[in-house]
Amino acid sequence: MKAVNAEIIAIGDELLYGQIMDTNSHWISQQLDQIGVRVVRKTTVGDNERDILEAFMKAEVRADIILITGGLGPTKDDLTKPLMAKYFQCEIVPNEQAIKDVETFFAKRGRELTPLNKLQGHLPSKCTYVPNERGTAPGMWFEENGAKWMSMPGVPHEMKYLMEAFVLPKIKEQFSLPVIYHKVIRTVGIGESWLADLIATWEDQLPEHIKLAYLPSLGQVKLRLTAFGEDHQQLSDEVQMEVKKVCPLIKNYIYGYDQDTLEEAVGRLLKSEGKTVSLAESCTGGYIAHLLTSIPGSSSYFNGAIVPYHNQFKESLVDVSSQTLRQYGAVSEETVAEMANGARKRFQSDYGVASSGIAGPAGGSKDKPVGTVWIAIASADGLVTRKLQLAYDRQLNIEHTATAVLNLLRKVIKKQ
Amino acid sequence: MKAVNAEIIAIGDELLYGQIMDTNSHWISQQLDQIGVRVVRKTTVGDNERDILEAFMKAEVRADIILITGGLGPTKDDLTKPLMAKYFQCEIVPNEQAIKDVETFFAKRGRELTPLNKLQGHLPSKCTYVPNERGTAPGMWFEENGAKWMSMPGVPHEMKYLMEAFVLPKIKEQFSLPVIYHKVIRTVGIGESWLADLIATWEDQLPEHIKLAYLPSLGQVKLRLTAFGEDHQQLSDEVQMEVKKVCPLIKNYIYGYDQDTLEEAVGRLLKSEGKTVSLAESCTGGYIAHLLTSIPGSSSYFNGAIVPYHNQFKESLVDVSSQTLRQYGAVSEETVAEMANGARKRFQSDYGVASSGIAGPAGGSKDKPVGTVWIAIASADGLVTRKLQLAYDRQLNIEHTATAVLNLLRKVIKKQ
Repeated sequence: MKAVNAEIIAIGDELLYGQIMDTNSHWISQQLDQIGVRVVRKTTVGDNERDILEAFMKAEVRADIILITGGLGPTKDDLTKPLMAKYFQCEIVPNEQAIKDVETFFAKRGRELTPLNKLQGHLPSKCTYVPNERGTAPGMWFEENGAKWMSMPGVPHEMKYLMEAFVLPKIKEQFSLPVIYHKVIRTVGIGESWLADLIATWEDQLPEHIKLAYLPSLGQVKLRLTAFGEDHQQLSDEVQMEVKKVCPLIKNYIYGYDQDTLEEAVGRLLKSEGKTVSLAESCTGGYIAHLLTSIPGSSSYFNGAIVPYHNQFKESLVDVSSQTLRQYGAVSEETVAEMANGARKRFQSDYGVASSGIAGPAGGSKDKPVGTVWIAIASADGLVTRKLQLAYDRQLNIEHTATAVLNLLRKVIKKQ
Repeated sequence: MKAVNAEIIAIGDELLYGQIMDTNSHWISQQLDQIGVRVVRKTTVGDNERDILEAFMKAEVRADIILITGGLGPTKDDLTKPLMAKYFQCEIVPNEQAIKDVETFFAKRGRELTPLNKLQGHLPSKCTYVPNERGTAPGMWFEENGAKWMSMPGVPHEMKYLMEAFVLPKIKEQFSLPVIYHKVIRTVGIGESWLADLIATWEDQLPEHIKLAYLPSLGQVKLRLTAFGEDHQQLSDEVQMEVKKVCPLIKNYIYGYDQDTLEEAVGRLLKSEGKTVSLAESCTGGYIAHLLTSIPGSSSYFNGAIVPYHNQFKESLVDVSSQTLRQYGAVSEETVAEMANGARKRFQSDYGVASSGIAGPAGGSKDKPVGTVWIAIASADGLVTRKLQLAYDRQLNIEHTATAVLNLLRKVIKKQ
């Protein structure tokens, strides 16, 4: 079976100049991957006629499906619509339904329709109009030059709406898709090359059509197995067999699979054990609470958090003794232990979790340089504490601490 | 003066399959932009010999500088090093200094050197070895085929180290750079087309060499002015003059400029007024605390936060009365007002800020559907409350609420 190839083209000077991060291409990749479409290239070009037309031309040769984001706003710097009309040699004409939809969009929100917005209902005559419920820039679908093309606005939630409501179903309907099967094993607390050493013998015996990749990110490494073939069940069985072989070699480091996040894995563990958690966050400043509460349904195991950013509130809100703070300082094993106990007590939870450290860039000393962090977990079984010595910038120190805290909590719950 | 053009090539199947988001290209863009190098293209290709070599070939034609990330790990799926050797027709040979540096890296961390890691010290003979203090994959600089090439690992903090320590200084030394001057005006609380209407007359009189772009993101729109020329001072003066003309037209919506974030702007305001803030976050679950504490120095105005995720803790920790909760429910103007007062009192701050809502996907009712959110600010001048009716997914509802809260706080501080 012939592979179905896609290319993603993101348009906008702001993407090249680094003023906006392109999160769209990443999300689109994930969606296409899941339905067996192979993304072969991502290209980002500026608001420049020659570059955009050249990108269209090259993409057409490589790909069966070309998904374009950006350059569709009502304002003057947006070129996608006129250039698609030019590329496919057609006129831009008023589209009755599109104009009506823009009018309804504004009417519903009690806002006045501007002349600029009304022009958004004018479309290249060769396109199929795709209504955009989330905004005023319409989707445009073309079947031209032997490929399928879709132009979508760059605003992420509008693009997502158009992909889910129209593009993905349309692709499934129009193509007979080959099978790619992925399985991702997610590990935490071990580096890429140590992991590679532990599984070297297993890796060498993998069959030709199953590929392994190591995907490292801060404090975590994902192992991705990709199998290519024609039968979904067969690929899934084969990959599952390989997963069964490799897991025992690295089992203490595995926290989840596929799209799992560490915070989801911890949430699932808490839920299955019927336990609750609460936090006293100093250096992480609410970030761990944010991670845990970003999971739907987290209210069943997350009781709450206190961010006592000054010593006086470590005393008044999480019951750290003034004696401890005076004698050992805020960044110490003693303080973080009392914070964990305080968080557990104040929120009547099974696990009390705490962080206290120097995230930087200022606040370090010779004894406690920037990146010195203490973390603790209090439970009915007592206290567990760890010291981290990080060497990143403020943001990464916060994120790395959160990973370490969640991993420690995972291990405490599993009693590893 | 000839523009200096750069292309960024990101390598890795994981980027095409959507398993890792490429944040590197965005960061590199920002850095190059600041020194006047024009990024003309970003390309992402998979771990595939033909595609990688083709990307090298095309980039060489378009760009003076080609920056490559990824495909450099010690494991078997990484192709960048052998393909660069092939492309420049040279051998991979042991590099004494690189091997020594890898050994030192491991020794310092008290870890054993694996054979795989040792191979990371073998490099294409035509490259200049660039030491990587943050990891074991070395940087490689080539001056071949009329362009400068740099290969860097895909791990963000390693790539950043190599860019700052070597690549950016090297580019400044080797090229005579033209001048691009950007100014970004950051607005919040107004949509793109309304903004466009307010400034239409001004926009029409902009000189030819100053371009305007609208960059919308959730609840915010950035206006980017870009001027091209040869004299930095002259461009800066001209742009500053245009900024002076446009600002009065939209002044209530402007919260900052250039790389400012809303949380920085609010922090600066608090600092300049000598005021402090504290939070009671329910539906935002610690996210606003995280935003505020991600700013270095925030401890001078941020006192702390409480995330009372259940009603009982809204009572015990931020002093909401049980009567209010019974009568109006947790998501109500009455409750959020008491939360704001409680946060203010518990942390003895000037501003108490609160959020309570239904982030979704579950928890909605007919009267209070998912996306119903109340926010409040308490201060010595009394209470301000707002109701939001959002219609996104959980994550976006949280982010949108945070933007609305920070904007309301900004307005209350400025007494707009």
